[in-house]
Amino acid sequence: MSLLSKGKKIVAVARNFAAHARELNNPVPVKPVFFLKPTSSYIFQGSSIQVPSTCKALHHEVELGVIIGKRCRDIKKSEVFEHIGGYVLALDMTARDIQDRAKAAKLPWAVAKGYDTFCPVSSFLTKTQIPNPHDIELWLKVDGLLKQKGNTNLMLNDIPTLISVISSIFTLEEGDCVLTGTPEGVGAVKEGQTITAGITGLCEMRFPVVARAPPHKEILAKL
Amino acid sequence: MSLLSKGKKIVAVARNFAAHARELNNPVPVKPVFFLKPTSSYIFQGSSIQVPSTCKALHHEVELGVIIGKRCRDIKKSEVFEHIGGYVLALDMTARDIQDRAKAAKLPWAVAKGYDTFCPVSSFLTKTQIPNPHDIELWLKVDGLLKQKGNTNLMLNDIPTLISVISSIFTLEEGDCVLTGTPEGVGAVKEGQTITAGITGLCEMRFPVVARAPPHKEILAKL
Ligand SMILES: [Mg+2]
Ligand SMILES: [Mg+2]
Ligand SMILES: [Mg+2]
Repeated sequence: MSLLSKGKKIVAVARNFAAHARELNNPVPVKPVFFLKPTSSYIFQGSSIQVPSTCKALHHEVELGVIIGKRCRDIKKSEVFEHIGGYVLALDMTARDIQDRAKAAKLPWAVAKGYDTFCPVSSFLTKTQIPNPHDIELWLKVDGLLKQKGNTNLMLNDIPTLISVISSIFTLEEGDCVLTGTPEGVGAVKEGQTITAGITGLCEMRFPVVARAPPHKEILAKL
Repeated sequence: MSLLSKGKKIVAVARNFAAHARELNNPVPVKPVFFLKPTSSYIFQGSSIQVPSTCKALHHEVELGVIIGKRCRDIKKSEVFEHIGGYVLALDMTARDIQDRAKAAKLPWAVAKGYDTFCPVSSFLTKTQIPNPHDIELWLKVDGLLKQKGNTNLMLNDIPTLISVISSIFTLEEGDCVLTGTPEGVGAVKEGQTITAGITGLCEMRFPVVARAPPHKEILAKL
């Protein structure tokens, strides 16, 4: 059983890169903003990202995911690195139109962020492979065209801050994943396109985007 | 290993009782509104509910929790009951002040709903013990004073509707929990008080409320 498959939650950080917060006309937050994605949204290379029939603007967000190695509750920043088990490259796929409607109605983000296939991840990366997670370059292309490229040294709140703060709210358990935010350049992808993303010099992954069949008619009225 | 401890997520439904939606001045929704709580928020009788130092209005919401017995993805309403493994009585504890600030800023509900100890649950209830989950009476008292009492026949969206709709968004897995919404009468509890809650004629549970120690100083500025 891999470390990731033991995990029970994905805690994601919104607006952790100033240029990305600004590109969506959001305020740059002083305090980190957290949301949850369900682990049922994970997919691995070989699977496709599915666009829900109710989503007209599926956005890509390339992010570094930190995989927890040991239970964390109320840990200090100085204790964070010893609790990290490793890393993944991740896509925080977002139904931007559904999220925008949720925000306008002051409703939760869970659906907009949580559909099945909305968290594609790379294979596991060890701490030896990423000796300094605050100095790696993340990139993402759609059909070979570069859309996102940014260094993790631009994070507003660094990994020790994020994980110590999260551990004061939710206990983090072995295999849980913390998504650390996306650099600027997010945008829409459509069925038929292919996303490639990587960490420069370290890994690369590839996910085709396909349409998801609409749900049963009896369900449609409730979506 | 109990069914609940195998689960990886808690999917909760907001405003599924009209009188409760109205008591918080929220619109009564046509479509169900879902959010996620992490399984790290579960506690069982013998533990206490902890009020975070950052929360000035911790609210109780008594709810029926449905525990998934078999993986559900795109299931029809008629298939829902065979996928149910059993039930729990649950408290959807909510940091109402934190939630109100999140809503005003169009931010996620995850923190307001997800702190450790924010999902106290009863022992497992079998389908034989609850032959009709749409006709049971939930009640909740604070220090012996009745605050909530309502029949599950008042749900706006019933369990087959909720679970079939959720299964079209997030795959539900064995042990996942669906919280089905709270009847009217929610309100604040403070440290030193005790919540008792039950299903009339079936079960009763008891949770003291205590203060949680504030987090490290280096974290406080980020909360
Ligand atoms: Mg993101
Ligand atoms: Mg949320
Ligand atoms: Mg509730």
